[in-house]
Amino acid sequence: MKETKMECDSSNKTKKIYLFGKMHPIKVGMRKVELTDTIEDGKRRENGCVLLYDTSGVLTDENEKVDIKKGLPRLREEWIKQREDIERLSEFSSKYRNEISKKGISNENYFPLENLPYKAKKGKAITQMAMAKQGIITPEMEYVSIRENLSLQETSYITPEFVRQEVASGRAVIPSNINHPESEPMIIGSKFMVKINTNIGNSSLSSDIEKEVEKSLSSCLWGGDTLMDLSTGKDIHQTREWIIRNSPVPIGTVPIYQALEKVNGKAEELNWEIYRDTLIEQCEQGVDYFTIHAGLLKEHLPLINKRLTGIVSRGGSIMAKWMKENNKENFLYTHFEDICQILSNYDVAVSLGDGLRPGSIFDANDEAQFGELDTLGQLTLIAWQNNVQVIIEGPGHVPLNKIKENMDRQREKCFSAPFYTLGPITTDISPGYDHISSAIGAALIGWYGTAMLCYVTPKEHLSLPNKEDVRNGIMAYKIAAHAADLAKGHPAAMIRDNALSKARYEFRWIDQFNLSIDPQRAREYFGNNNSHGTPYCTMCGPNFCAMRISREVSNKGKIE
Amino acid sequence: MKETKMECDSSNKTKKIYLFGKMHPIKVGMRKVELTDTIEDGKRRENGCVLLYDTSGVLTDENEKVDIKKGLPRLREEWIKQREDIERLSEFSSKYRNEISKKGISNENYFPLENLPYKAKKGKAITQMAMAKQGIITPEMEYVSIRENLSLQETSYITPEFVRQEVASGRAVIPSNINHPESEPMIIGSKFMVKINTNIGNSSLSSDIEKEVEKSLSSCLWGGDTLMDLSTGKDIHQTREWIIRNSPVPIGTVPIYQALEKVNGKAEELNWEIYRDTLIEQCEQGVDYFTIHAGLLKEHLPLINKRLTGIVSRGGSIMAKWMKENNKENFLYTHFEDICQILSNYDVAVSLGDGLRPGSIFDANDEAQFGELDTLGQLTLIAWQNNVQVIIEGPGHVPLNKIKENMDRQREKCFSAPFYTLGPITTDISPGYDHISSAIGAALIGWYGTAMLCYVTPKEHLSLPNKEDVRNGIMAYKIAAHAADLAKGHPAAMIRDNALSKARYEFRWIDQFNLSIDPQRAREYFGNNNSHGTPYCTMCGPNFCAMRISREVSNKGKIE
Repeated sequence: MKETKMECDSSNKTKKIYLFGKMHPIKVGMRKVELTDTIEDGKRRENGCVLLYDTSGVLTDENEKVDIKKGLPRLREEWIKQREDIERLSEFSSKYRNEISKKGISNENYFPLENLPYKAKKGKAITQMAMAKQGIITPEMEYVSIRENLSLQETSYITPEFVRQEVASGRAVIPSNINHPESEPMIIGSKFMVKINTNIGNSSLSSDIEKEVEKSLSSCLWGGDTLMDLSTGKDIHQTREWIIRNSPVPIGTVPIYQALEKVNGKAEELNWEIYRDTLIEQCEQGVDYFTIHAGLLKEHLPLINKRLTGIVSRGGSIMAKWMKENNKENFLYTHFEDICQILSNYDVAVSLGDGLRPGSIFDANDEAQFGELDTLGQLTLIAWQNNVQVIIEGPGHVPLNKIKENMDRQREKCFSAPFYTLGPITTDISPGYDHISSAIGAALIGWYGTAMLCYVTPKEHLSLPNKEDVRNGIMAYKIAAHAADLAKGHPAAMIRDNALSKARYEFRWIDQFNLSIDPQRAREYFGNNNSHGTPYCTMCGPNFCAMRISREVSNKGKIE
Repeated sequence: MKETKMECDSSNKTKKIYLFGKMHPIKVGMRKVELTDTIEDGKRRENGCVLLYDTSGVLTDENEKVDIKKGLPRLREEWIKQREDIERLSEFSSKYRNEISKKGISNENYFPLENLPYKAKKGKAITQMAMAKQGIITPEMEYVSIRENLSLQETSYITPEFVRQEVASGRAVIPSNINHPESEPMIIGSKFMVKINTNIGNSSLSSDIEKEVEKSLSSCLWGGDTLMDLSTGKDIHQTREWIIRNSPVPIGTVPIYQALEKVNGKAEELNWEIYRDTLIEQCEQGVDYFTIHAGLLKEHLPLINKRLTGIVSRGGSIMAKWMKENNKENFLYTHFEDICQILSNYDVAVSLGDGLRPGSIFDANDEAQFGELDTLGQLTLIAWQNNVQVIIEGPGHVPLNKIKENMDRQREKCFSAPFYTLGPITTDISPGYDHISSAIGAALIGWYGTAMLCYVTPKEHLSLPNKEDVRNGIMAYKIAAHAADLAKGHPAAMIRDNALSKARYEFRWIDQFNLSIDPQRAREYFGNNNSHGTPYCTMCGPNFCAMRISREVSNKGKIE
């Protein structure tokens, strides 16, 4: 696998910069866009710079050399090492993982380095939530406060103390497994920028490790805030290892997928021991959050019969089958306290899965969906008692007029734990364009308060996405998230729009490209347009350029 | 130019059908999707059919032969001929048009046939609005009632009488120039399906007639409800002639563009006589609605100086320049009554342009925008007094949280005349993806009550769209409009979603494709997927197919 670097603009006007912490020895990466000067009536005026939120880590730092076989620099390891409540183990705790070690690195697919895991010392509460409750501002908290402010000046909106309060209350989550020190801290909560998650993963029918790692790197370069590895095919553990070691963003998984592979796809043969070992395996590997379908109960199963499209969550359907075949309550529910105790040792967050999310407009906001949501609320309190950070997963397919009810109900029933929704898709009739039908719902629910949006690609419902599909999915969701930030009034959001629009009104094309969500695409569409540098563009030509004429009739000067 | 036919699905399960009128001898085209049978537990059950709204006219009728050089069949001509209040002229009334006739058909770009124009007899009020006010249900009104019901059964929701009432009150518009008899009646109003408009048009810098006609045909095939020809280059009249003669949907224009060409691009030299002659030229050619920027007044000009992006409407900027250079009130405003009298002779609707629509998030909902909107309300009453049908144009760039105010204010100030918005785009930072950022705003404002959405393509702000951009723009807007219809509770909307989702849950792939907004794209993305016909798909593979497992745990049978 070869090195991956983000294409920089030829004008060298955008670059990676770092802002430094005051409480902790931390440096926070950002993308700085230097704006070109306005030349109006012959006078030159500077436009300064704009800082952009940057999810790409050292992948875009020209002073760092990225070797995928070595993984990214272990940014947070020093912070973790210095903590007295954390220790490094001398071996892995999972049976499955130890068997892999015994076999040795025999396969070219195997990631060549092995790091022994960190774990909480016995009886120590080490999670970000535990620290926050104790009044401690961790390096992670200071990091996200700088990251969210997006300013060279000190601002009073998102202070480290504000971050601490949000994490302590459970209203925000900083996914940060102590075994994923390569990740840059980020925060998920309704008072912060809306984040987007991307999914990758091979299935038994297609894809390979190299392609998945490439997609994961692209996701970070294009702006994905977190990444879920939903692999279900062979080499799940190894695919994940490559991805985690090279990921500057938090990684999520659905552990039941791997557990199911371990019982050869027979859902009814799943059991707590296998699941538990899988959790520990993944905790020690560095997964930052787990989707766990613990809220789908036996009592909900009859409600499925009233539906048009039954269960459309993979994890949900697996647990439903397990309950039916074994005639027992969901073991993820009965063992939820055990699960929390495991997760709390590594600071893995739980993302409570919505196994009964509606898969069609017809099923939206039904008894099954809301019944499960009530259970997720109960589980939230159990997780918080164990200092485990919690996210709540949400729909699915929901028409525009039923979206707000989802948000309001989630906030009430789950005590303002961050909501993390899949879209929602606002119509069923758009296969091939579901990134758009779902970005509509995502923008709306983001504005209403959802903290993270799980992207959908154009291939949803049809097949697995390729790299270009990942790009289109990400861009649709970056737009939805940013539209929501503007509407919520996030103080940093509008700076970028204003700078781009001022550049547009002054025909500063380079600045428009650099400030846009996908500079490469904008430049490509602009093309070999002769108007580069002239005060009109190919859309309308000189006589019909509204902005050119508008400048003439207003008190603005002449742009050169 | 060669024949254009919509690609039919290989299974022959979708076809053009016609429903017949009861009051008038009319036939209304629709797309009928025959659903395949469900085979569950070995038993076969029929799923019937779904009717889809169809904007393609005879282009998809396999019994009709389309010859672009002859134009489409003149569907409405018999209806018009039978009216005693309308006469056929023996020559064109516009000087410019008569000069073209004098020169003869000398150029290969010239459309080969010439039809003399229809016009109201002196003193006769012939518009759909005039008829509706008199209690007359026209063939056009019965047509749209059948078209909107989308049902083989009689339904009580959208009756011809209901259509008449909506048109009489001005809450809905049926654009239907008597000189565009090729067009199929359609209705624009908040109680009907949300419609989408597409824009095409060459500029002085690119494009040619053939390409524009091809794009216009594609627009109708893909689902555009109306089409605006925004050409500004040479051969404007002829480009338009080809488009109108081959268009089954209403055509809109911005007459000031052609008027400006007639004064060689010098806005200050525009005058009422040239504009008036252009209006008559286009009325007699068959344009169904005109965008007229009559609400932008001298008093609004100082407000532009407070803006970030000034005037971004081409027509608005032209009129602003004219007012400034001539130091006079907008002649479109001072001559508005004259304009209405001309339009009423042909039943051309007026689309009151928003010359001051915001071009950036910063400028949304400002004094300039709302000042002009108030004027548009006054003009609406004048138009209605003259029995001219009215649409009101709206923004532009608006953040999510300011969209509702636009709709509410428009409804109040313009007396519930249909609102027709450009997006709105919900962030400025998405060049290359503005079809998505604007589809978000469009869906929202459509749900709030906007009757027609003007599409935006991915090339917006960058260059002119090609055919694939037109497709992507249309699909984004078909989604926005349909999502709005679902949320508004249009009775026909959900039938399609439910049918598609039932097909999805039963792995009936052909039906999913045929019911989707772009069957060709869905099929292409599905690819040579082996799961065609098997009860799972390539996204998850058999062990992880939630729907397959869900069927097992519910009381549903086994799908074969």
